[in-house]
Amino acid sequence: MRKSIFFHAGCSVCVNVEHDIVNLIGDDKVEVVHLGDNKSGIGESDAAGVKSVPALVMPNGNVLHINFGASMAEG
Amino acid sequence: MRKSIFFHAGCSVCVNVEHDIVNLIGDDKVEVVHLGDNKSGIGESDAAGVKSVPALVMPNGNVLHINFGASMAEG
Repeated sequence: MRKSIFFHAGCSVCVNVEHDIVNLIGDDKVEVVHLGDNKSGIGESDAAGVKSVPALVMPNGNVLHINFGASMAEG
Repeated sequence: MRKSIFFHAGCSVCVNVEHDIVNLIGDDKVEVVHLGDNKSGIGESDAAGVKSVPALVMPNGNVLHINFGASMAEG
């Protein structure tokens, strides 16, 4: 099974959601990309249709925007 | 392990997210409550801190508001 990818930007909302998501689905099934530390991830998240962080991109390509930390437009 | 509870209201956003969440975490680990069909669920979701649907209430009590279907204020 392909992994889901969790994009976040280090904000407190993001970090809390990250812990919840990892607990929920298991850290072997989700790759975490910190867009603050990993600028190349921004192209990847844009391509995936991520509009705000934190967001989870699923193996089928659907994007779940979870709670609301920051808009990608602020990046 | 306690189950997570997925609250939704039957909107198209909700139904799509429901499928994703069930695929992601497994239908044995999540209880789905349709607030349109189950009015008593509204008190339960309010008590859990659900502000909009669809939302996933985790076993630890944290609430993940996913994408955005409808505000509970519209109920």
